[in-house]
Order: sequence, then structure tokens, then C-alpha cells
Amino acid sequence: MSSARLIYLPLGGAGEIGMNAYVYGYGPQDQERYILVDIGVTFPDMDGSPGVDLILPDMSWLIERRDRLDAIFITHAHEDHIGAVARFPELLEDTPVYARAFTAHLARLKVEEAGLDPKIVRTVSAWPETVTAGPFTVGFVPISHSIPESAGMVIDSPEGRVVHSGDFKIDRTPVVGEPFDEEVWREIAKPGVRALMCDSTNVFSRKEGRSEAELPGEIEALFSDAKGMVVATTFASNVARLKTLAEAADRAGRSICLLGRAMRRMIEAAVATGVLHGFPKVISPEDALSVPRENLMLLVTGSQGERRAASAQLARGKFNGITMKEGDMFLFSSKTIPGNERGVIRIMNQFSEMGVDVVDESAGFYHVSGHANRPDLKTMHDLVDPQMVVPMHGEHRHLREHVKLAGEGRRKGIVAVNGMMIDLSGNEPTVAEYIETGRTYLDGSIQIGALDGIVRDRIRMALNGHVTVTLILDERDEPLGEPWCESMGLAEVGRSRVSLVEILEADLGQFLGRASEKTLADDDKLEQELKRIVRKVSQDEIGKKPEVTIITSRLA
Amino acid sequence: MSSARLIYLPLGGAGEIGMNAYVYGYGPQDQERYILVDIGVTFPDMDGSPGVDLILPDMSWLIERRDRLDAIFITHAHEDHIGAVARFPELLEDTPVYARAFTAHLARLKVEEAGLDPKIVRTVSAWPETVTAGPFTVGFVPISHSIPESAGMVIDSPEGRVVHSGDFKIDRTPVVGEPFDEEVWREIAKPGVRALMCDSTNVFSRKEGRSEAELPGEIEALFSDAKGMVVATTFASNVARLKTLAEAADRAGRSICLLGRAMRRMIEAAVATGVLHGFPKVISPEDALSVPRENLMLLVTGSQGERRAASAQLARGKFNGITMKEGDMFLFSSKTIPGNERGVIRIMNQFSEMGVDVVDESAGFYHVSGHANRPDLKTMHDLVDPQMVVPMHGEHRHLREHVKLAGEGRRKGIVAVNGMMIDLSGNEPTVAEYIETGRTYLDGSIQIGALDGIVRDRIRMALNGHVTVTLILDERDEPLGEPWCESMGLAEVGRSRVSLVEILEADLGQFLGRASEKTLADDDKLEQELKRIVRKVSQDEIGKKPEVTIITSRLA
Repeated sequence: MSSARLIYLPLGGAGEIGMNAYVYGYGPQDQERYILVDIGVTFPDMDGSPGVDLILPDMSWLIERRDRLDAIFITHAHEDHIGAVARFPELLEDTPVYARAFTAHLARLKVEEAGLDPKIVRTVSAWPETVTAGPFTVGFVPISHSIPESAGMVIDSPEGRVVHSGDFKIDRTPVVGEPFDEEVWREIAKPGVRALMCDSTNVFSRKEGRSEAELPGEIEALFSDAKGMVVATTFASNVARLKTLAEAADRAGRSICLLGRAMRRMIEAAVATGVLHGFPKVISPEDALSVPRENLMLLVTGSQGERRAASAQLARGKFNGITMKEGDMFLFSSKTIPGNERGVIRIMNQFSEMGVDVVDESAGFYHVSGHANRPDLKTMHDLVDPQMVVPMHGEHRHLREHVKLAGEGRRKGIVAVNGMMIDLSGNEPTVAEYIETGRTYLDGSIQIGALDGIVRDRIRMALNGHVTVTLILDERDEPLGEPWCESMGLAEVGRSRVSLVEILEADLGQFLGRASEKTLADDDKLEQELKRIVRKVSQDEIGKKPEVTIITSRLA
Repeated sequence: MSSARLIYLPLGGAGEIGMNAYVYGYGPQDQERYILVDIGVTFPDMDGSPGVDLILPDMSWLIERRDRLDAIFITHAHEDHIGAVARFPELLEDTPVYARAFTAHLARLKVEEAGLDPKIVRTVSAWPETVTAGPFTVGFVPISHSIPESAGMVIDSPEGRVVHSGDFKIDRTPVVGEPFDEEVWREIAKPGVRALMCDSTNVFSRKEGRSEAELPGEIEALFSDAKGMVVATTFASNVARLKTLAEAADRAGRSICLLGRAMRRMIEAAVATGVLHGFPKVISPEDALSVPRENLMLLVTGSQGERRAASAQLARGKFNGITMKEGDMFLFSSKTIPGNERGVIRIMNQFSEMGVDVVDESAGFYHVSGHANRPDLKTMHDLVDPQMVVPMHGEHRHLREHVKLAGEGRRKGIVAVNGMMIDLSGNEPTVAEYIETGRTYLDGSIQIGALDGIVRDRIRMALNGHVTVTLILDERDEPLGEPWCESMGLAEVGRSRVSLVEILEADLGQFLGRASEKTLADDDKLEQELKRIVRKVSQDEIGKKPEVTIITSRLA
């Protein structure tokens, strides 16, 4: 098999932050056997994907080759790594999903909710245990991050060893889970590592990262000063942070109540899988109602300002019967992801109107990042000591900067974005092929392509409004009465101080009165002309060119 | 006139950042004479105001009372203070607009563009010159900010002196314009100040603000290291920053070229009004094409990622014939306003793909804020030494925090948001009345109300898609053929793997076949039923409930 090659192909997560999905392959060209590491989602926004429920990587390339897919590995249970695990049933037909216990627990819930068999998800213990999948032997190495049981993957192939960092930070005192263990990584590096695929999220953060263990003191001081109820939010999956917050509250003599489905689900998963011990006793929302507010702390979902989560609902008035009021405190123990600022700021102001004091992480006291900063990335490069570094999980600017960092250590790197198949078999990474990749939208209950125009039409209606024109033509292609117009999302009255719809109807009627038989008989031509007139008249009257639907009914 | 009172009424800018518009009044209740300080705009976004061109304060309260409006004063030429100056012609019929020379120059351009007489804008020199407007005597006190000739207003009334800070920072070495002058403010404070209306934007920034003069060294070092073309962006109105950037480039032996209409307009205004001296020679974009890139610096518009501005166009490929390439540098010498992150990040990644090095202000070397930080606000309180502090220009959380800060200095304060008319005549600020305020949208060429449902309908179409149903009924109210459906922004095929539109038409046809004569004769009832069916069937098929337009044509 001298023609066999080892390839790496990001289908998501490279050139963006979110929806991680990385293929590794080994074998002769076009006969490679594959494994997939992570299968995540990313979240829609009003700017680019209004009305969309979830954004998934386009997996069609892999689905076409699913007979050669030997296993799926999930590094950790963040939605951008696990979120799409049950969204592509075709991939799961003959392919097991491997993860550590906590991650596997959550993966099974997703698989079950999708009506699939949870047995396809298999729990793997930490390195040195390994799983064999086709030509690969794969192990899960515990690594610190902002969720329990995150793992870096050691992927051995006939072409040598690859390390896939997963999302990670260097935290030697992580509160929950295993501390970062240099010794293990040194051992893994010993036989020689061909390539390190490495998290790039924080490559622009120039200071060394901080440990979770730096927070409890600050948070305890904050809580002990608080006079009213204390409410804190963070990512539900940040179990260590939840523990830190709950313990600080407990020491301040407060009862703890979890609000929001995701919050309870995560704590349950962490307890069930044994990663969380000694979490203070939790009371139900009903019981919380009878606890004096100065003796209560709520841990709530919605750190990113999500409109339906507990924090947004508390900010609007009430959640599970609980209301906030003057003298209470609300703590954002989380970073605001770019793009979510408006939602978070809205909540801050709503609380301000109630007289609630809002504390955020801007001072750096109440949050630490889950990703390795630039000096920590350097440490990881040095520990794993790979021949080449392929940055992953980052926007283009992060990947590019990370390649520069690798270069500072005289390691070969390459900026590989989604769809770039990289051949790792040689002395340096090279582009083997360009694969068509993209995004799939879960829109309501249907998966649609990001580029098939459906969402583009919605964006256009949002920007331009919509006009419907109905026209009835009789058996001889003569208009029966006047055309009818209806508008949605447009000013009713424009420059002429007359109803826009009436002006449109009059102008379209005039056009039809003058139109040739040929035009009237030709649906396409007629539609084109009517649209042109609607847009022109609307532009004159209200300064907008609406989207137009023309409905021509011909009486047979 | 013992019943006369001095009132303050924010119509915009209090409880939000943007669209500043503050009314002051003096006289017996409901006979007060008014002045307006600032008349700004705010910018729309896809989340809340898709397709809208500009957001203006709802000025109807003041328009109804325009016979009692004696003058409009503009503190400075930022769009959120001056932007709506020509948008309410009713206000300008008998009312002069006063501003300092640079601001007046730009106000006249706006007034002229709107087809109004630029003579209504009158230039006022700096304090101690004053203008009399009804019962008020008003002076413009130079104060440092991020645009030339910013002013704080001294407003004298029979009830005493009020200071309206405008947007300001304490900068004793501002590069362009007058340094912050404590002595002037001490003089102004001497007769006693009843109230200070004070900028609140940076109340959460705990460190003292930094001076514009701290930047040139850092920027020069950055430029002197650059190998290729250098491009820098900041707000076009930040003339001091433009000068700093241009001088650094000039010293590095680079020719300077301004790209973007706003950039040229601002520099021209600053030169024409004498606020800018010694700006290095500028070359045209055509000439720039023949300058070696290592000898060129562009100053470009679009620091907030605006899609049509020069930086976004350079990031997409070309602007005025100029392209960027590997080895060039792009500097964001500006803060990203919350909500604009996505646009800015998009540009950063586009440049990264070209191999352009992007430098931003995150290290704090290449940007300083134009607003007073918390300690600087304290300094201003102490200098002006008012009886009461009324925070303005801030979201609710900023105003609330600023009242707390005033309380630390044992000064009375009040959180006054848009529409709260505050009586300043007593010993402490009290709410006199609540006025209905809001936002007006410039939508195309028409002003529409923010709450009149037009934009809400557009948002709904963006989230839910749209279906049009056309139905023809004959003279006896019997359906003529089947109903027709057209969808926009929806998946074409759903759960049943058949065209959604065909399923809708079949189900609507069935309903019509069974519908009673009474239902068929009743337009409202019919519409309601058809909509219900469209939503239900769509929900079943594709998991979305679209907006629906029903068009019923009855043949007479």
C-alpha cells in the first residue's frame, strides 16, 4: 500500500467558530477509510439566517462515502461539537459513535430524541484505552476545557500519530475534572507526532490563560456583600463554574435553585456519569418561592441573552413564578459571544429598570476562558512536538495567526479551511483536493441548503417588503376587471399621499389596457412587466423596491 | 411668574445610546418656551429594524408645540446629535439652528441636501459669546471629544444655570481643537449651577480616560515596521485621529490618500472652518495607483464594517481601483460599537484571506475613547459642582450607575429616560409629566412609526416566510376552480415529499368544497379559515407557520 495516504478534511469549524466536523482518512486515494471527529452545529442569527432553527455542516460528501466511515468520535459535549450527532441518521446506520461517559450520556439523549437507537453511542474510558476503527487506533486524552470530560484525541495510523487537541485550555486546577497533565502529553509525544490539529479560538489572547480555581474567592466576596437575591448565569455546560457558583452561595448560607431545562440536564448528566461530586443541595423552584430572597441563589440559563431562556424571562418579569426586584443582584459569569451583545445588553437594561444590580465579567473577576491563549498554544506545540501544526476551530484570521505562531517554533503549518483536504503523509502538509462544503439549515422541521435561495428570499422580504399582484384573464386573455394588489411590510401611503396599493392598481391597470395581445398571452412576459411596474412605482412613491409575487389566473 | 418652572425633557438619547434630543423649557405650565439641544439619529439593524434606512426620535410632541420653540442648538456633528437636523422641516420653519462653525458647516450641508434654506443655521463663537432664545441665554463651551468643536452648553434661565455637558472627555492634549479647560468650567460654576445634564456613555469604565496625544508614538512605530501598503480606518469625524494617522504616515515617508465620501467631507469641513491645520498633503485615488504600495497609506471609511463603505469594499476586492494584497496592513483605529461585531469580523477575515495583517484596538495602543470615564465624570461633577445631576446619553444601566456616582458626591440625581419631563425648579429633580415618545423610521423615502406594524410584518416574513392564496368566487359565491398558492421563503417540499404548495392547494380545495354558503359569502370568515389551514398544514409539513395573504376575487 505504498500509495496510501493520511488525510485531514475539515467539513466544518475551520474558517469559522462553530459546527466542528473533521474527517481523517487513511488508504489509497479514493479508497481511504474514514473517521469523523466531532459533528457540531452553529447558531443562526437575524442578519444572515432569519427564522432558521439550527445551522449544520453540509455532510453530503461524507454521506456519499458512508460505507467507508468506520467511526465517529466526539471530543466533548458543547453543541458546536456534538449538536448534529443525531441530525444525519444516514451516517449512523452502520457507524458507532464513541465518547467519554459524560459526553456519551448527552449524545444518547440526542440520539434518543431523534428516534434512533441510543446503543450506537459507546462509552470509552480515558487514554491509554483506545478504540480501533478501520486503520486507526484512537484514544481520548483528558484535557481541561469549560465542560467536563473534554478530550484531545490521539489518532494512530500506519502513517504515524496525529494529535487532535479538541477545544482545550491549560488548567492545572480546574475545579471539576482532570487537571492538565503535561506528563501524559510528553508520553504521547515520545514516539513522534506527525501532526497536531490545534484549537485556535484564543490565538489573539497574548497573556497566559487563567485557571478556574482563581474565581471562587472573588465570587464569594461578591456574594457575601449581596443583600437581596443573587442570580448567576453561565453556560449550562460549564459544570465547574456552576459548582464554583453554587459553593460560594452555599458558604454564604444561600439555598441554590437551578432554573432552565439545560441547566438541570447538565447537572443531572454530570452527577449520573460521576464527574460531579459534592455539588451543594439544590431546591426546586416551588420551594425557592418560600425561601427569603437574601438566602437564595438561582443558577439560570441564558448567558447569551437568548430570548426564551431563564435570564431573559426573569428580565421580562417572571420565570417559574420567581421575580427579581430592587436590591437583587444578577451575575453574568460568562463571555458574550460576538453577535450576542444586543440580547445581553437588552437584559442588562431590563434588570437595571427593576433596580437589579448587574455584574458582568468585564473586570475579569468572574469568568475565565475555556480556550488556550497564545502562550498556552505555544506550550502545547512544545509538549506534543509535532512535525506540523494544522490550526483548526477558528475563523480564517485565527488559523492564519496560529500558523504564524507555529512558524515561530519552526514548525510547518498550513491554513486549512473547510473543504481543503490536507495530505499529511509527506514532510509538510499539502493540499490534496478541494471538496465542496457548506452549511445546511434546519428550518422548522426541514433541512434546506444555505444557498438554495429560501432564506435569501426571506431576507429580501425583510429588507424590501412584499407586494402580491393578482390578475384574472378571461378565455380570450383579456383582463377581467382590474389587477389587485396587497402589500405587506410597506408604508401604506407614499409621496402622493394616496394609498400605495391604489396607485399600483391604477398604474398596472393602465399598463394592461395598453398591453398587446402577445404580452397578455405570455405569462413570463406579463409577470416581468408587472413586477417592473410595481418596483418602479413603489420606488417613486415610498423609496423602496419590494419583492413581488404575481399571480395570473387564466379562466379556461 | 411665581408658577414658572424650568423643565428638562429627553425625547431621545436617555435610556439608549443614540438619537439625542433634549428639550429645555421655562415658563408657567403648558406655556413654557422651549429650546432643543441636539437632534440626532440612530442606526437600524437587521434584528429590530430590517430594511429601515435611519431611526429618528419621534418629535411629534415638540412639533405640536413648535410655536413655542425658540431655538435648536447642536452640541457637535456626530450623527447621533446632528443627524436629524433636516428631517423635521416643520420644526425649522421659524426656528434658527445654532452651532459652532464646524458643526454649522455640516448642518448646512444637511439642510441644503433636504432642499431647505441653509441660512437657518447660524454660527456661534465659543463661550463667553451667548445666544438669547426666549427666556434662555445659551453659550457653547469648547469641550474635548472625538470630533472637532464639540461643546458643552451653558443654559441660563430665570431659574438659574444649567450645564448640558454634551458628549465629552477630559483631554488636556487633544491633537485637534481646544484642550479641556478646567479654569473655564470653574468660572462657569461660580454663580452656582442648578443642574448638570451629563454624558453617561463610559460610566462603567473605571480607569481615567487617556488622551489622543498618547497614540502617535504607538502608531508611528506600527507604520514604520510595515512593509506593504498601510490602510487605516476610524470614524470619519474623528479628525484628530485622522491627523494622527496621517502625520505618522507622513513621517514614515508615505503618501496619504482618503477613500470614502464621508472621509473627504469631514476633512474638507475641518479645513474650511479652520479647525484643522497642517494636515499632510493628500493625493487622489488615481494618483495613489502610481505610488509604490510601501510608500502609501490610505485613510478609509467603514470602521464599523458598513457593507458599502471603503473598508468593506476593499475587503471584498477593490475600491476606487485600489486592491489590497499579501503583506499589506489594515488598522482599525476605532472601537466596534456593540452590534457591529459581525460586520467588522467579516472584514477582518476577508483581509486575512488576502494575507493582509489586521491590527485592531484590542491592545489599547491604537485607539482612545471620546467619552469621559467614571473618574472623569467625577472630576466634571466636582468642577461644575451642580445641585443636581441628571445623567443623559446612556442606556438605562448607564443612567442608573451615573446617578449612583452622583450620590457618592452627595449630589441629587434622577434616572430620567425618554419621555420623562423633569422639573428642575425645586431642590431636587422631580418628575413633572410623562410624555409619549418613541422612534420614527425613515423607510425608503417615507417616515413611518416604529410601532405601526410595517417593520414587524417584515420581521415576521423573515422569520416565517410568506404564502399567498388566491381564490376566485363566481357570482353565486362558488369557488371558480381551485385556490392557488405561492410561497416565498419556504422549503418547497416537506415531510410528505410532495410540493408544499400542492398540498396546500389540495387541502384548501377540500375545505372550500365542504364550506357552507354562509362561510363562502363572508370575506372575513373565509380569510380566517384559509389562513388557519395554511398555517396548520405548513406546520405539519415543514414545521413553520408562515405569514399568509389571502386574495379573494369575487366576479361581479
